[in-house]
Amino acid sequence: MRPVCVLMGNELFNDIDPDAYEVATAIELFHNFSLVHDDIMDKAPLRRGNPTVHKKYGDATALLAGDVMLVTAYDYINKIKPLYLHKIIALFNKTAKEVCEGQQMDMEFESRDQVSLDEYVEMITLKTSVLLAASLQMGAILGGAGLGNQQQLFDFGKKLGIAFQVQDDYLDAFGDPEKFGKMPGGDIIANKKTFLLIHAMEVATTEQKKLLEDLLRSNNTVDESTKVKTVLKIFKDCKVDEWADQLKEKYFKEAMMHLDNTAVLSARKEELRTLARYLMARDK
Amino acid sequence: MRPVCVLMGNELFNDIDPDAYEVATAIELFHNFSLVHDDIMDKAPLRRGNPTVHKKYGDATALLAGDVMLVTAYDYINKIKPLYLHKIIALFNKTAKEVCEGQQMDMEFESRDQVSLDEYVEMITLKTSVLLAASLQMGAILGGAGLGNQQQLFDFGKKLGIAFQVQDDYLDAFGDPEKFGKMPGGDIIANKKTFLLIHAMEVATTEQKKLLEDLLRSNNTVDESTKVKTVLKIFKDCKVDEWADQLKEKYFKEAMMHLDNTAVLSARKEELRTLARYLMARDK
Repeated sequence: MRPVCVLMGNELFNDIDPDAYEVATAIELFHNFSLVHDDIMDKAPLRRGNPTVHKKYGDATALLAGDVMLVTAYDYINKIKPLYLHKIIALFNKTAKEVCEGQQMDMEFESRDQVSLDEYVEMITLKTSVLLAASLQMGAILGGAGLGNQQQLFDFGKKLGIAFQVQDDYLDAFGDPEKFGKMPGGDIIANKKTFLLIHAMEVATTEQKKLLEDLLRSNNTVDESTKVKTVLKIFKDCKVDEWADQLKEKYFKEAMMHLDNTAVLSARKEELRTLARYLMARDK
Repeated sequence: MRPVCVLMGNELFNDIDPDAYEVATAIELFHNFSLVHDDIMDKAPLRRGNPTVHKKYGDATALLAGDVMLVTAYDYINKIKPLYLHKIIALFNKTAKEVCEGQQMDMEFESRDQVSLDEYVEMITLKTSVLLAASLQMGAILGGAGLGNQQQLFDFGKKLGIAFQVQDDYLDAFGDPEKFGKMPGGDIIANKKTFLLIHAMEVATTEQKKLLEDLLRSNNTVDESTKVKTVLKIFKDCKVDEWADQLKEKYFKEAMMHLDNTAVLSARKEELRTLARYLMARDK
């Protein structure tokens, strides 16, 4: 999705520049570097249904493999025309540091009792949205876009990324198992702080809040399906599902407004509109 | 030492270019990034007499801090004039990948029974020498040096780095405790494959070899000072100390030859000659 955003951000302004493919490759390498290192930190055993790099080759080799992937991303960036090299590296570096910061926040949140909605949005923005946003902006830079259009596209990607995460959290709880391809409640079982849980904790009655807190501390004492059912009932009682739907809609509309404000012919924007709508209608 | 090499490599051709300071900073950041990640992999508790980053802040934070240091190195590179940006990034990336490869080899060697001298030289070259060599070459590039001079300086740094490692291994075994600041034999206690041990295994009698192998497997059964004394006696009996001294001299002479072959006024090379001699006379 991220490499495609580089190409689409580029095509918005002109025919696709061959340099856009180099940057798209760099972005995808960077994304995978971050997954390899995140999986070490999270001690994740599986990724895309396969053993993670550190599970298969050991932590040390995975760490080094990630490092080399990051360096290799700069190899691809280094292939583009000198004219945009400085700008692309500057944006790439800024984004890379933000993604690392988002991962640090995510880990820190795990050990905290309370996370506010604003903090969660900030973390998600850094950890996932800015890379999508920067992908679009890098495409725009290579297309010769002005600063105003670059910023609009960046904001479009940023808001779209947040809307996407709201949907992701929603589907993990309320998704149709048949369409979604897995049983709902993974985040609930893992005690993950999601948009849904954070909002529920904010609006729940004292009684509901206590029940939620007990369930979050109850690992291995309450069976998983009871835990999922109870939490989902509280979510429904608190209308967290409706709230999440509106929140997603809010971010999606803001995203679309930034696309509207991008000063190119409307016809050129149709593909990005279609992509955004497709992402928001995703079942799995 | 590495940042100084960037500046000295630069000053060989001209007055110091302000860009050399940016690249020197990038090189030092890269070096420290590699130490932070290496310390995680090696589970090292101390670095420069202080707790390592991962000991103090945890593996995950150290991993991310390293990642951000690497990205920040590129921030400094990205400050230089566009004219040399592509070339500096290309050399920086090539070197970064080689350093990672050297660390991977080093870890692999730990679990192997036998390592040949050629393999050890290859590992040391990648893990430590190429960064010194590339520092000099980057300074040369920024000084407008031609490819021939760049290569001579690179080879000077590469050979000097190997000579330095031979000396490092020698001092760890035979260094004067008073001048060296610590008791000798750290590498022997840690069963580290060094220039000395690898050569000893190649020239030892069957009896000496068996004794060495027994000692390497004897962790915690033979007391450390007996182990160090016995291994040092074998080293002396095999004349490993004289051999190491000659090997260091060989690499040092090759290094100096490459400096001689660098086509700049001899007077300009005096500082680098002095630095090389100083490094080779180091007691601690």
